[in-house]
Amino acid sequence: MVIVMGTNATQADIDLVLARLAEQGCRGELTVGVERTIITVVGPTTPALQEDVRVLAHVVDVVLLGKSYDLAGLDSRPQGTIVGIGDGARSAEIGGEQLAIIAGPGTVESAEQLAALGAPLREGGAAALMGGSLRPGQSPYAFTGLGEEGLRHLAAAREATGLPVVEEVPDTVSLPMVAGYADALEIGPHGMTNFGLLEAVAATGKPVILRRGFSATLDEWLLSAERILLAGNPHVVLCEAGIRTYETATSHTPDLSAIPALKRLTHLPVIADPARACGQADLVPDLAVAAVAAGADGVVVEVHPNPDHALADGAQSLSPEAFLALSARLAALAPAVGRRLPRPA
Amino acid sequence: MVIVMGTNATQADIDLVLARLAEQGCRGELTVGVERTIITVVGPTTPALQEDVRVLAHVVDVVLLGKSYDLAGLDSRPQGTIVGIGDGARSAEIGGEQLAIIAGPGTVESAEQLAALGAPLREGGAAALMGGSLRPGQSPYAFTGLGEEGLRHLAAAREATGLPVVEEVPDTVSLPMVAGYADALEIGPHGMTNFGLLEAVAATGKPVILRRGFSATLDEWLLSAERILLAGNPHVVLCEAGIRTYETATSHTPDLSAIPALKRLTHLPVIADPARACGQADLVPDLAVAAVAAGADGVVVEVHPNPDHALADGAQSLSPEAFLALSARLAALAPAVGRRLPRPA
Amino acid sequence: MVIVMGTNATQADIDLVLARLAEQGCRGELTVGVERTIITVVGPTTPALQEDVRVLAHVVDVVLLGKSYDLAGLDSRPQGTIVGIGDGARSAEIGGEQLAIIAGPGTVESAEQLAALGAPLREGGAAALMGGSLRPGQSPYAFTGLGEEGLRHLAAAREATGLPVVEEVPDTVSLPMVAGYADALEIGPHGMTNFGLLEAVAATGKPVILRRGFSATLDEWLLSAERILLAGNPHVVLCEAGIRTYETATSHTPDLSAIPALKRLTHLPVIADPARACGQADLVPDLAVAAVAAGADGVVVEVHPNPDHALADGAQSLSPEAFLALSARLAALAPAVGRRLPRPA
Amino acid sequence: MVIVMGTNATQADIDLVLARLAEQGCRGELTVGVERTIITVVGPTTPALQEDVRVLAHVVDVVLLGKSYDLAGLDSRPQGTIVGIGDGARSAEIGGEQLAIIAGPGTVESAEQLAALGAPLREGGAAALMGGSLRPGQSPYAFTGLGEEGLRHLAAAREATGLPVVEEVPDTVSLPMVAGYADALEIGPHGMTNFGLLEAVAATGKPVILRRGFSATLDEWLLSAERILLAGNPHVVLCEAGIRTYETATSHTPDLSAIPALKRLTHLPVIADPARACGQADLVPDLAVAAVAAGADGVVVEVHPNPDHALADGAQSLSPEAFLALSARLAALAPAVGRRLPRPA
Repeated sequence: MVIVMGTNATQADIDLVLARLAEQGCRGELTVGVERTIITVVGPTTPALQEDVRVLAHVVDVVLLGKSYDLAGLDSRPQGTIVGIGDGARSAEIGGEQLAIIAGPGTVESAEQLAALGAPLREGGAAALMGGSLRPGQSPYAFTGLGEEGLRHLAAAREATGLPVVEEVPDTVSLPMVAGYADALEIGPHGMTNFGLLEAVAATGKPVILRRGFSATLDEWLLSAERILLAGNPHVVLCEAGIRTYETATSHTPDLSAIPALKRLTHLPVIADPARACGQADLVPDLAVAAVAAGADGVVVEVHPNPDHALADGAQSLSPEAFLALSARLAALAPAVGRRLPRPA
Repeated sequence: MVIVMGTNATQADIDLVLARLAEQGCRGELTVGVERTIITVVGPTTPALQEDVRVLAHVVDVVLLGKSYDLAGLDSRPQGTIVGIGDGARSAEIGGEQLAIIAGPGTVESAEQLAALGAPLREGGAAALMGGSLRPGQSPYAFTGLGEEGLRHLAAAREATGLPVVEEVPDTVSLPMVAGYADALEIGPHGMTNFGLLEAVAATGKPVILRRGFSATLDEWLLSAERILLAGNPHVVLCEAGIRTYETATSHTPDLSAIPALKRLTHLPVIADPARACGQADLVPDLAVAAVAAGADGVVVEVHPNPDHALADGAQSLSPEAFLALSARLAALAPAVGRRLPRPA
Repeated sequence: MVIVMGTNATQADIDLVLARLAEQGCRGELTVGVERTIITVVGPTTPALQEDVRVLAHVVDVVLLGKSYDLAGLDSRPQGTIVGIGDGARSAEIGGEQLAIIAGPGTVESAEQLAALGAPLREGGAAALMGGSLRPGQSPYAFTGLGEEGLRHLAAAREATGLPVVEEVPDTVSLPMVAGYADALEIGPHGMTNFGLLEAVAATGKPVILRRGFSATLDEWLLSAERILLAGNPHVVLCEAGIRTYETATSHTPDLSAIPALKRLTHLPVIADPARACGQADLVPDLAVAAVAAGADGVVVEVHPNPDHALADGAQSLSPEAFLALSARLAALAPAVGRRLPRPA
Repeated sequence: MVIVMGTNATQADIDLVLARLAEQGCRGELTVGVERTIITVVGPTTPALQEDVRVLAHVVDVVLLGKSYDLAGLDSRPQGTIVGIGDGARSAEIGGEQLAIIAGPGTVESAEQLAALGAPLREGGAAALMGGSLRPGQSPYAFTGLGEEGLRHLAAAREATGLPVVEEVPDTVSLPMVAGYADALEIGPHGMTNFGLLEAVAATGKPVILRRGFSATLDEWLLSAERILLAGNPHVVLCEAGIRTYETATSHTPDLSAIPALKRLTHLPVIADPARACGQADLVPDLAVAAVAAGADGVVVEVHPNPDHALADGAQSLSPEAFLALSARLAALAPAVGRRLPRPA
């Protein structure tokens, strides 16, 4: 921590700062310049101490140095982390050389809907199946999914396809139900700062797909990941799904630059969800390919047997044919960016 | 809802849209222009129908008309709403001619701290006492308050001052404890989209101070209010506390323009919390006065007996003297904007 | 400037930094902490030096301290600046105790239009007349005003009303023409970073109303003001007119918090233009009153004899009656915030 | 254009709207629903008419349909546009199958500096040479480049390397000088809304690299391109270089999603400049690769013989070695995304 004293600070002002630091078990070292004095703090600094000092007389600025997500930070695990989802024959990994595609319908509508997706998902090399069953909507009047019926359909589809299941957990009340069916738990953008939910989800021990809050900085996002790690659950995957900006051409602005930036800050796997970021199916393939080229360990893709008749999110869902075309593009691209995407047959 | 067909749409494309509308119990009326055809929909339109239609061939745009927060909308109660907090001698109202000042420390530190604030808060015309006891921090390592001990101090201060108590509820787990002490429950910016929390808080029947999410639009904010109203709790106060923008001169950007904009959209009382919006105590008085001039029904002000030694939030807290000076400014301003702020003796 | 060395920095890394500083005529003082070493720089630091040092091995961060707008900074003129517009009988001041209202039509349409505004503007205490004659539009197909004909109408209205004239200068090509008629020159949001235009306008010696760019930080805005001051023209007024945020309820988001923030950073007068910030006439009066309560030295108000039939900007223009009502509100409010607004008769 | 009438609108209100439309040569067709009436407008609608109607009694909303950049729109040239830079042996194309790399130093420092870059730029397959000679800085105190001396160095480097030269034009005053040396003219983010500059640059007939304004929407960006096209210059390349958001991890937020979005809106070539978007050299290669995967026709890359000693922008510049490594990555990726990048020998 560095404390900048104003040009009119007296020795008494400086002494007051030093005394405050001493009270908190810190030591201040002075650098006396021509115009101003700088106090560099040695010892256990905290944001509270920063605020504490900032209000003292003639303190112009207090700058904290260093980061605060020790467990999520790259230094703590420079080799990177691979997160496993599911077990036995029905498992997948996110974070290794192999690209992980998580695919399925934005909203689970029926067993038939999921059955129609099994073949194309397998053929396209999907690593996991997702499908919205509890969909928290902004409006209290919106459709919120089939609930447990949807989860049962997903569990059946897991048996049929061998793909582990990913499901969003909207709140702590529904956590036990979701955790009873899903292999990995997703936290939506509104959940990223629902700290009680993060801790409850962490306690299940299941892998967590942590989507970025719509106005979260990278630091805040990593602090939410830190909270899960600190609770003893190391299986965290970060999922970029767009930020809120002034631009209205897309529903949110996909922030692909977060992918390489995160790779320099954290050892956790990073995936991208372009459909929920931009809201437009026709942009999804290009953005998914770009995300992988930027370093993403995988992508989330909404697929629907018939997007034109989807109960919701049809506008951002790919048809099975479009999904297979995207998968082929990713498989062709993968070797050029040091990845691979095996496709059965 | 209005559906815009592309310039190349054929009669078959249009018929398909009309059939889809009919399936959903709606009727489409055509307007055939020189360049394009517009279909105006009559019947129960929903966002799901909008998405449904948007993906049909040659549909260029689908525009929803009308608002979706019926209970919170101004039309449902044009005379405005007054929310009462507390009861008997220890009560206050928000939304009437009298300005409501909610004041107290950002963090409850001790019984002595609250005792030191009693006299200035009464003298300054405060309507309610707040004090952070459960402070959800972005970092899992941050200080989170005294917990129930803080709530006990607040309850004692209520007895001593006669001021009802407002307290933030960070999650559903701590709701019963907080509701056991507080007269009104505050939802923080992260909580605004924690729908489970909103419904649980609504169910207590206690007044709810609903702060705006850091990247919430006015519509989204009102939809969160709608959710509380829909759950049967009509006692909702909206509290503007800053939005996230590119500007870094303040911690967030106080959005005072939301105040008059809300007054044209909703009957709910609107207050402003400039300290938590901007993070700088020296800006708080000017912003509080401006908020009232813009039409706010009250303000939230952080006050600490000795901001220089506050455990947290010292940089955005007013001293008792500064609070009294602000109160005097508000009392002087009030008549010029059709309000009043009685100050005892 | 403070340089933060990484935890793995060796003495050789530190020596390299010190040598680089010495090359640039600076001296580095070391603070050796338990975890890391901090180098505090004494001497003439620049952004170039900052970039220069940042790329050296094991340099983790380089923090510049201090501001860069010396002439615009509050320290250089703590008593504040009053900017005079016009001369003799047709003059006004911005920045003193008296509130300055700059009013007129967004677009000059005819001599009759301006004539119809003369009486209400005088009666409402307007200090200056504005009227758009050269309106730079985002679209090349948009109406851009009457040009010199509009300026002639304004000059005639100045004779009739005694009010000095303010006019926007869209580019250097039209500067001589505008400067030939107007008493003060306005720079629009797009012009704030058109540095050639700023310098050309500064060279006229006329007062400059400098509107904030739509995504300008306070620092960037003040650097544009600094450029005008540095060119020898001290007559600069800052005009807040909204920033671009994610919120779509208004055309831009009026940033009233910039007003008190600027008052702590600069001695230049600050006014607000709520109509162009929010785009909605019904919000303008509340926002204008709030801006003055926040400390603004005046407001810009678009007035049209018949907003329903305005050629442009009708939706954000006040009628003469609404203008007089706003003026009355401002006059009533002024004494409560240490201002006055004399209204003739 | 669609006009939405309020629920309380009377026949007289509707008739007034219809009359206003008729005055402007338009016709309104009514759709009478259960709750409200919608008027669909047939005829030449404009934003001015939209504003005009919006203020009439009981008009709730007026929605414009359709786009306003006819020349830049994809419909006007669905096969796409290829922009040629330079002529004869010293020429390049942007927009075809071959990727275009524009490379060079952020600031031209000397003839030696450019000479040191010649070999790696050629070897890496660069299509054009850029180098900042007139660098408009936010601060009036910042270094602004070598001016004409830098341009002379660039012209000499063109002879030596055979690469055409791209140079930013900061203002109309310096346009003749820059146009006297450069083969293509770049407009910086501040220039995108300097309409006088756009028209002056267009008049040279030279290719224009149009960078996006820091807070420009896609629509606004395309309207600036439209202005150049409308002035008779069809040689426009769009260059994404970051937008301003709340995120502070990078200097601006690169918006790679704009690339596929633009490809669906316009026929103009689109390139990306990740260095100026993010400000960090270590992120540039991943972002450049991602931009090409997203569909970009090329990238701009800052290269310096010795970034550690760059006069400016060192922190965002690649070394020659890093540039060659990036070029190799792009060449490897190109075939997987339907492109090619020939590298000599």
